[in-house]
Amino acid sequence: MNRCFGGKLLFGTRLVVSLCLLGLVHLFGSAHAQTIDPLPSWNEGPSKARILAFVQAVTDKSGKDFVPPADRVATFDNDGTLWCEQPMYVQMAFVLDRVKALAPKHPEWKTQQPFKAVLERDFKALHAQGEKGVMQILAATSTGMSSEAFNRIAGDWIAAARHPKFKRPYTELVYQPMLEVLAYLRANGFKTFIVSGGGIDFMRPWTERVYGIPPEQVVGSTGKLKYEMRDGNPVLMRLPGIDLIDDGPGKPVGIQTHIGRRPIAAFGNSDGDLQMLQYTAAGSGARLLLIVHHTDAEREFAYDRKSSVGRLDKALDEANAKGWTVVSMKTDWKKIFPFE
Amino acid sequence: MNRCFGGKLLFGTRLVVSLCLLGLVHLFGSAHAQTIDPLPSWNEGPSKARILAFVQAVTDKSGKDFVPPADRVATFDNDGTLWCEQPMYVQMAFVLDRVKALAPKHPEWKTQQPFKAVLERDFKALHAQGEKGVMQILAATSTGMSSEAFNRIAGDWIAAARHPKFKRPYTELVYQPMLEVLAYLRANGFKTFIVSGGGIDFMRPWTERVYGIPPEQVVGSTGKLKYEMRDGNPVLMRLPGIDLIDDGPGKPVGIQTHIGRRPIAAFGNSDGDLQMLQYTAAGSGARLLLIVHHTDAEREFAYDRKSSVGRLDKALDEANAKGWTVVSMKTDWKKIFPFE
Repeated sequence: MNRCFGGKLLFGTRLVVSLCLLGLVHLFGSAHAQTIDPLPSWNEGPSKARILAFVQAVTDKSGKDFVPPADRVATFDNDGTLWCEQPMYVQMAFVLDRVKALAPKHPEWKTQQPFKAVLERDFKALHAQGEKGVMQILAATSTGMSSEAFNRIAGDWIAAARHPKFKRPYTELVYQPMLEVLAYLRANGFKTFIVSGGGIDFMRPWTERVYGIPPEQVVGSTGKLKYEMRDGNPVLMRLPGIDLIDDGPGKPVGIQTHIGRRPIAAFGNSDGDLQMLQYTAAGSGARLLLIVHHTDAEREFAYDRKSSVGRLDKALDEANAKGWTVVSMKTDWKKIFPFE
Repeated sequence: MNRCFGGKLLFGTRLVVSLCLLGLVHLFGSAHAQTIDPLPSWNEGPSKARILAFVQAVTDKSGKDFVPPADRVATFDNDGTLWCEQPMYVQMAFVLDRVKALAPKHPEWKTQQPFKAVLERDFKALHAQGEKGVMQILAATSTGMSSEAFNRIAGDWIAAARHPKFKRPYTELVYQPMLEVLAYLRANGFKTFIVSGGGIDFMRPWTERVYGIPPEQVVGSTGKLKYEMRDGNPVLMRLPGIDLIDDGPGKPVGIQTHIGRRPIAAFGNSDGDLQMLQYTAAGSGARLLLIVHHTDAEREFAYDRKSSVGRLDKALDEANAKGWTVVSMKTDWKKIFPFE
């Protein structure tokens, strides 16, 4: 309170009161910022420290690493980075369920691959159908309807489906520490985007509610759309065929097409995120490159170099070589899910 | 001031002072809102009245037409709606200038169409080359380089080029009344997007400065991109070929892909905007559908049904039939450009 007493010697009473109030606000503001931990689900350690240091550096107006708010763009992979992707990508669970639901209308599927394999839960036979099989399943389950119809179907499914291990809706299986990072970045003037290999319309019905990320900030794999008049009503029909596979080298393409500027922070967990991390890293100025390493078989899953879902191999080598932040779920995260 | 005196009878002095202050703020606030015209460059009349009534309706929490801020999406065509598109689309002027600039490296262009026609300013011969000719010119002038290199070239050009009639940079030939609409919508919780047939990367270097619309809120025609490592540096190379022609029926596709929700307000000026207006109109709830009709040959240009640039024919009929707002530049706009 020295400042206040000093002020009293120099100025009249009313001005002193104002200055004291300003001082109190200032002091209280600082104390407040120091005591409220923006990342309470993170254990103290180098990962947490680097996130905090990065945000402080790019928001410090007088520092050399300051970045104007408009350029504070952060991109997040979804599967395995923001929510659980094991034992299979959630959208894969969705399309397999859709095959089952639609099967009564398609008796031929009982003998026709790849549908036969799906209906018999024969994942080895399904895998043998390769990318062509996946495209056939996507076409049969996710096209030939309007965008709005698909949104309803996907939204209804996500509300009803349960994870096989955790027996909870998938939208509850989001990582609490990452929700805190999203909120912390936004509170510091960042615009947060999802950049996912998943279908853009599969994610949009719930990303705002679950992550606080609105539909227009979701970048994902994109199918062909066609504008049509049906009974005098304009609709966007979903056609077979993909315009963008927003995975691997497709992620920087999706970023440029949708966002139009290079992120200064990128978060991923697999080799599918490598190019997004490289592209983000290659810009000038302070950068945060972070990989979520699934190391916790007990609380979630443990997998990396040999997993068919969310393989983390080349990106782990590059992260180690370049000094990117590799988060160990087991040691860095106090809790994994919000409900714990 | 009746309220204050009434208060004095019922409450102690300090409370009365507070109530009076609140009352004053309230009174001042209302008076302020009534006296500051958010659209000063618009003449009084039905067009202006409908814009004001729409915004008041969707922002009135107690009204039946209230729309939550997240759904307040407004889309704007660019050429002819936000800036001058005559005597030729600005991007066409850009690529023609690029052909000229690149010609010394391509001696074969002197005898090769469509380049010969461009170099000789023979627009009849150029027109005869049709869409194939345009694609060849776009490929030669706007691909085979990184996104960043293109941004620099386009940004440098737009800073240096001058409009043939007005002798000013194109970015000064933006419509003051529309700048006011953009600002007014944003002040009322709208997110404003450009949805243009023009190239997405041609617009992005300057839309934030000129319109207050950031790159991630610009939707436009999109060329193919490829992620590549060049000398250990990741770049996005622009390839020949178009992923999205964001015009006519492509506009609702661009809206769904980039924004993921249906606008509640759409602004256009030509038949290329018809489907965007239809798609916007087809949603439920209050809507604002607006067409800028170029009726002022003296201050800008006058054209509609027979123009090859920005033809307004079918959309004008549909606007009249459906009661959309058709703005006459001549009678509705007090001033056209900010510099007037």
